Amino acid sequence: MEFKAYIKLKQELVNNYLEQCLPAADHYPPTIHQAMRYSVFAGGKRLRAILALASAYAVGGEPETILPIAAALELIRAYSLVHDYLPAMDNDDLRRGKPTNHKVYGEAIAVLAGDALLTLAFELLTSPALTTVIAPEQQLNIIRRLSQAAGSMGLIGGQVVDIESEGKQVDVPQLEYIHTHKTGTLIRASVMLGGLAANCSEKQLALLCDYGEKVGLAYQIIDDILDVEGESETLGKHTGADANAGKVTYPAVWGMKQAKSQARHLIAAARQDLEPLGEKSSRLKEIAQFIGRRKS
Amino acid sequence: MEFKAYIKLKQELVNNYLEQCLPAADHYPPTIHQAMRYSVFAGGKRLRAILALASAYAVGGEPETILPIAAALELIRAYSLVHDYLPAMDNDDLRRGKPTNHKVYGEAIAVLAGDALLTLAFELLTSPALTTVIAPEQQLNIIRRLSQAAGSMGLIGGQVVDIESEGKQVDVPQLEYIHTHKTGTLIRASVMLGGLAANCSEKQLALLCDYGEKVGLAYQIIDDILDVEGESETLGKHTGADANAGKVTYPAVWGMKQAKSQARHLIAAARQDLEPLGEKSSRLKEIAQFIGRRKS
Repeated sequence: MEFKAYIKLKQELVNNYLEQCLPAADHYPPTIHQAMRYSVFAGGKRLRAILALASAYAVGGEPETILPIAAALELIRAYSLVHDYLPAMDNDDLRRGKPTNHKVYGEAIAVLAGDALLTLAFELLTSPALTTVIAPEQQLNIIRRLSQAAGSMGLIGGQVVDIESEGKQVDVPQLEYIHTHKTGTLIRASVMLGGLAANCSEKQLALLCDYGEKVGLAYQIIDDILDVEGESETLGKHTGADANAGKVTYPAVWGMKQAKSQARHLIAAARQDLEPLGEKSSRLKEIAQFIGRRKS
Repeated sequence: MEFKAYIKLKQELVNNYLEQCLPAADHYPPTIHQAMRYSVFAGGKRLRAILALASAYAVGGEPETILPIAAALELIRAYSLVHDYLPAMDNDDLRRGKPTNHKVYGEAIAVLAGDALLTLAFELLTSPALTTVIAPEQQLNIIRRLSQAAGSMGLIGGQVVDIESEGKQVDVPQLEYIHTHKTGTLIRASVMLGGLAANCSEKQLALLCDYGEKVGLAYQIIDDILDVEGESETLGKHTGADANAGKVTYPAVWGMKQAKSQARHLIAAARQDLEPLGEKSSRLKEIAQFIGRRKS
């Protein structure tokens, strides 16, 4: 199957599963469930979910069996965007050309919808269906690792430093902290959790972690590059938004040429990391390449 | 031991445990960890934690072994208050006479500190120490039940309806939804989780749930009564705040006399529910009475 068709198939798989997991839009109290659904189905690429599925496959697992984990990753991604876009934070009105959650439902509901998505993510991770394919101890381990990746020393920590650095002189270690934590941690966790859910070996886990770390950093560097060079239409937001908000970016610190070369280097090295996993890791390699070439 | 001394001892136990669990105030990035600690150690009564400990004891468990659960309940309580007080929500400047989180750290950090406390709660529930006293399947069950109690059909649902009902005509079923969900669900979950963590029987669990439901509702009715009759100094906030915010309350709907009689009735019935558990449930009974008599 071609890569594009593969991605489309997996997106549908994840979307159908999310559709089942999320409370119905008319479930009382309806506003919160509509707001949750609005942001979850706002047209994301499902990159984190697909990374988890491809990672499970790469170590011999059945991707379908780990759907609760893939869905939980997407819920955490959605929650973090809803909160990041709040007026008190990045204050973004648009995401992929659509009004952000608080523009549609108001700030109070947006805060609560984010909270509810985060909470639901943990509920999904306790799914009894998972207990039929992995040991409950491993399931607890997965919940533990995801809570650490999403917590104050992971995703949230990255957002804190990002906010605090706005309009200030930021050094390279701080920039790297922001990028590895704000985006990198969850991408790395997606790859790692997919492997753990497929009962991978310690050695396989180490390879997946190396790959995940590089791909996560590359993803953020490319995000920064697109913010400068991308087309507003494709991105669904105004280019130059980071610079205007006084945010520090890779191209701003290293120059555009070096930022691009670093992204290319990371993608190539990430693909290299997977060599020992053989043929089954080819989708993960394609995903790395896809991240390297993305335009939105 | 007298009840007052018992409560003090358990508060210290829970506070010491929370002290260990929360990242140090200078852990990078320090702002978020200071903000998390600020609200967790803002002088709460630790009612939910103590309910869980007393509930475990009532069914023959060792309270000390379930501290991660007791602490997780307090983190969820703290997160919900931090978010509820935000300007976009209840917009409260004071809690127990101290400035609320966003007044000290700003709105962005307050949102993130709430997120981080919620996330840390789930991490604590995966604690390997718990796995030594309960089966991992039961641990997953506890995480599942707490995520449901805290989610869009529990705690968050109650907050949604509360916000949407401000300044509107609210009927009794809506008032009951708000109260049973906003406060009741977490109080009931505290009692239930304490029992589950001590490997209680189905029959014991049903008794604990009955008790928890009544105590949770009584707690909220008394909250409403105190908002009208309490002393600002004892409460650490202005009395009449709910009425001023256009919030619906029990005394407003039923009249003060009936609200008080209902609270008394619920406390008595909750104590009655515990009879089959015998002597070991005497602390839980005392806690019900304490809730019935509280002044702040």
